[in-house]
Amino acid sequence: MGNFTGHAVPGTFFYIMGIWWTIKCIMKYFFKKHKRTSYLGSKALFHRIEISEGTVLIVMAVSGMLGEQFFPGGPYLTLYDYKNSQWVQLLGWHHCTMYFFFGLVGVTNILCSTIRSLPASFAKLIFSNAFFVETFIFYNHTHGREMLDVYVHKLLVLAAFLTGLVAFMEIIARTNIAVELLRTSFVLLQGSWFWQIGFVLYPPSGGPAWNSVDHDNIMFLSICFCWHYVLAIIIIGAIYAFVTWLIESRLKRFFPSEVELLKNTEREQESEEEM
Amino acid sequence: MGNFTGHAVPGTFFYIMGIWWTIKCIMKYFFKKHKRTSYLGSKALFHRIEISEGTVLIVMAVSGMLGEQFFPGGPYLTLYDYKNSQWVQLLGWHHCTMYFFFGLVGVTNILCSTIRSLPASFAKLIFSNAFFVETFIFYNHTHGREMLDVYVHKLLVLAAFLTGLVAFMEIIARTNIAVELLRTSFVLLQGSWFWQIGFVLYPPSGGPAWNSVDHDNIMFLSICFCWHYVLAIIIIGAIYAFVTWLIESRLKRFFPSEVELLKNTEREQESEEEM
Amino acid sequence: MGNFTGHAVPGTFFYIMGIWWTIKCIMKYFFKKHKRTSYLGSKALFHRIEISEGTVLIVMAVSGMLGEQFFPGGPYLTLYDYKNSQWVQLLGWHHCTMYFFFGLVGVTNILCSTIRSLPASFAKLIFSNAFFVETFIFYNHTHGREMLDVYVHKLLVLAAFLTGLVAFMEIIARTNIAVELLRTSFVLLQGSWFWQIGFVLYPPSGGPAWNSVDHDNIMFLSICFCWHYVLAIIIIGAIYAFVTWLIESRLKRFFPSEVELLKNTEREQESEEEM
Amino acid sequence: MGNFTGHAVPGTFFYIMGIWWTIKCIMKYFFKKHKRTSYLGSKALFHRIEISEGTVLIVMAVSGMLGEQFFPGGPYLTLYDYKNSQWVQLLGWHHCTMYFFFGLVGVTNILCSTIRSLPASFAKLIFSNAFFVETFIFYNHTHGREMLDVYVHKLLVLAAFLTGLVAFMEIIARTNIAVELLRTSFVLLQGSWFWQIGFVLYPPSGGPAWNSVDHDNIMFLSICFCWHYVLAIIIIGAIYAFVTWLIESRLKRFFPSEVELLKNTEREQESEEEM
Repeated sequence: MGNFTGHAVPGTFFYIMGIWWTIKCIMKYFFKKHKRTSYLGSKALFHRIEISEGTVLIVMAVSGMLGEQFFPGGPYLTLYDYKNSQWVQLLGWHHCTMYFFFGLVGVTNILCSTIRSLPASFAKLIFSNAFFVETFIFYNHTHGREMLDVYVHKLLVLAAFLTGLVAFMEIIARTNIAVELLRTSFVLLQGSWFWQIGFVLYPPSGGPAWNSVDHDNIMFLSICFCWHYVLAIIIIGAIYAFVTWLIESRLKRFFPSEVELLKNTEREQESEEEM
Repeated sequence: MGNFTGHAVPGTFFYIMGIWWTIKCIMKYFFKKHKRTSYLGSKALFHRIEISEGTVLIVMAVSGMLGEQFFPGGPYLTLYDYKNSQWVQLLGWHHCTMYFFFGLVGVTNILCSTIRSLPASFAKLIFSNAFFVETFIFYNHTHGREMLDVYVHKLLVLAAFLTGLVAFMEIIARTNIAVELLRTSFVLLQGSWFWQIGFVLYPPSGGPAWNSVDHDNIMFLSICFCWHYVLAIIIIGAIYAFVTWLIESRLKRFFPSEVELLKNTEREQESEEEM
Repeated sequence: MGNFTGHAVPGTFFYIMGIWWTIKCIMKYFFKKHKRTSYLGSKALFHRIEISEGTVLIVMAVSGMLGEQFFPGGPYLTLYDYKNSQWVQLLGWHHCTMYFFFGLVGVTNILCSTIRSLPASFAKLIFSNAFFVETFIFYNHTHGREMLDVYVHKLLVLAAFLTGLVAFMEIIARTNIAVELLRTSFVLLQGSWFWQIGFVLYPPSGGPAWNSVDHDNIMFLSICFCWHYVLAIIIIGAIYAFVTWLIESRLKRFFPSEVELLKNTEREQESEEEM
Repeated sequence: MGNFTGHAVPGTFFYIMGIWWTIKCIMKYFFKKHKRTSYLGSKALFHRIEISEGTVLIVMAVSGMLGEQFFPGGPYLTLYDYKNSQWVQLLGWHHCTMYFFFGLVGVTNILCSTIRSLPASFAKLIFSNAFFVETFIFYNHTHGREMLDVYVHKLLVLAAFLTGLVAFMEIIARTNIAVELLRTSFVLLQGSWFWQIGFVLYPPSGGPAWNSVDHDNIMFLSICFCWHYVLAIIIIGAIYAFVTWLIESRLKRFFPSEVELLKNTEREQESEEEM
């Protein structure tokens, strides 16, 4: 929807999911590294997590679609107005299509976790596809709008494209935690950028939108986009530090001797990779 | 040819081949996974399949080329009209060139299956080349046409380019079933989009074409393209479910004990990859 | 130089090198496959071949640079005309820079073959760089020229870029003979396209150049580019068949029993890869 | 800052770092190759080097940021002038943001060297990000400036983008010394190009800037960019020769017999890779 809420809601969704994926990715990395501590990272647990994640994604997507269709003055599932021979609120339908693909990600997550014969890469592929579809739709979303409006959406397209690209590369190339966190950093960037768009185009204070033909605004938003990215990096760093501290302190309390052993193995492995 | 048939025919060709490649790719995946059941996936069988596939491609390509050249009012193999000093029906020659490259795919398929010393990657390379050539020609196909016409062909270019790109990446990077099905999904997308172009530009009902300067039509076709892609995903999902069911039920009937064994090995392998 | 010779000469250079690289690449493939027949592909021989190749490249590059500088009316090594405060024949200097980079490829080839401590990947990198530099220069070469002229050079840029891209991918990704032949096919394409440009812009018959604002000419040159590529594929196929026949017939004459053995091993290896 | 110093300073920074990274990369390659001589390349030494490098980067970045903010007439940390309702010196803020990201590279370098649990790929990722951010900002930096100004910055964008791209590919693909030196060559190219921009737009002699609407200037700068790249290649070649000579001569003096052994192993290894 073309108002502040219509941008704050997806922004919040992306931010929540970005933080969650960051936590999951760091936890997986630690459980993989400390193979001995597998009692914390049992497969059954991860299956249940995948299913919950899928459910949350579906709930978000469905609520987004319902919001787009049935808000007061929405299209109410009408696509074409035969009386006036015109399309009904195509922008709303654009948003619905995007929500639908993220819902599909949730469905695939659940299917890949419950049905054994499905390869896990399907879920990753649909994930990357959802972001590419978002890229494609936002790219064709702003025909004939004003310069500033087009520009902030272009930056959104950039963030979505980069997320999809990194997610796709995780499928075909050798992957590591750095690349995975790069992906989640782009998701966080997109989340906070949605909020920024809301503030720029529909200031919640009720004031007028920013001057949409002033070049300086665009110059500022360019670096503002970079600052949002710095924020994403800082948040990921904080989560990394917190999760590391949490896991190590929990281990220490229960298995003080094992932690020492782990640290030594770690150090040896690292020293081999180092050179 | 610039009419409904000229778009429905290649669309149907792509759809048939897309469905076939999806089936082949899923079957290969299963035979690879269940190495023990190799009586179903004997090499000789796959060789014969490749040769049949090549023959079908050649037949499709030749019939397409003949159709483009010898339909009433076609160029009849004339390239340059020396009397009037002008080129003869270059669009038809464009289409012929594209058909020719798909015919070449068929020829390479047959050669790579019959001649032992030829690496199998040649067939994949020519396959990816055929789609890149299609991309190149369609990209240079719509000089000076109207906005809507250009836009629907641009989306076709996108689908063809993505197919070629994924096919090329299968040659140089580590590949898996998800990437292969991504490729076939783009082939299906292209097939149904050819039909869509036919309906938009040359409605078979005989009515007028869509308003080619209405921005809303373009906005709608953007999401319509995504819906076509959803359709492709659903069809691939259905084929996957059907082939899985077929293979497992056949196995169960003949070797009930072996199926149980297979399932267990599967589960163990998966559980290792999972983390 | 802006005449027929100035395009025919580099075209011939590229064609000769393209054919030679194709032969070398196929020979290497066969020697690698038939490890037992290493008496044909001794290291010393390959070193001498690399050095000869480098020398030929340097001779070509130097003769090209001399031709650009000292043809009647050329810049004669003057870059800036201080009297009239203007640059002297910058297009000639553009061509010289390109020739220089190809000469550098030759130098690196020789260095990497004679000095042991230099990694062989340096030669590949400089090779790929030479084509990227060519891409870059041709891209900035046609400011303010006519449509047809710009278009034929754009296609040249495309061919050079693809060559560089494939050569670069050979460095970072797993490579095989298909990718290497793809690279040589683009070199051949570029070679014959240089000739095509000569015929289009400076017809050797002395007639006028093609009409540079006729859209049909551009439409024709698009498919003509594809036909040149078909020619490159056919030539590579013919070379492949000839080299295969040559090697196998020579082996058969001297070691008839070994050939049978080889064929069997081959067949077994292939059958494993096949599925 | 829009003057000669404002371009010469970052240019010098990039050149120093480029030369240093080249040396480090070649040294690492040699220590990896001659595993036996590990007394020269001890881990502790490399850790200390990484920390010094990070410190230098931070010092450079902070001095750059202070210079941008507090030079006479600078923004003095003011972002928005509420009195006149306009942004304050956004170009300076652009530069600051870029410097900030390079400072972040230094911080990550130090963190990854001191904290054991941090993967080394984080440092590489932030490195590649810094160049992508530079690309992004410079791309949005020259709205409404003159043709020549835009063009020289575009070439800077190209150099920064290529550096980031190669650095990113080192994370996800198999890497070798050629690719690493490619990256440092782009850093050197960027360094000397900064100086070139300074000379073109703000001649230190005090004379007028180059004619910014003369197409010939752009034509010359295109090849000038290539010549800068040749310079970078020559410098890297010289460093390579010097480092090789230094290491081998030092080895020879202390362990003459070992060097002979090394040379032989080398020769054998190479001869295996060769074919």
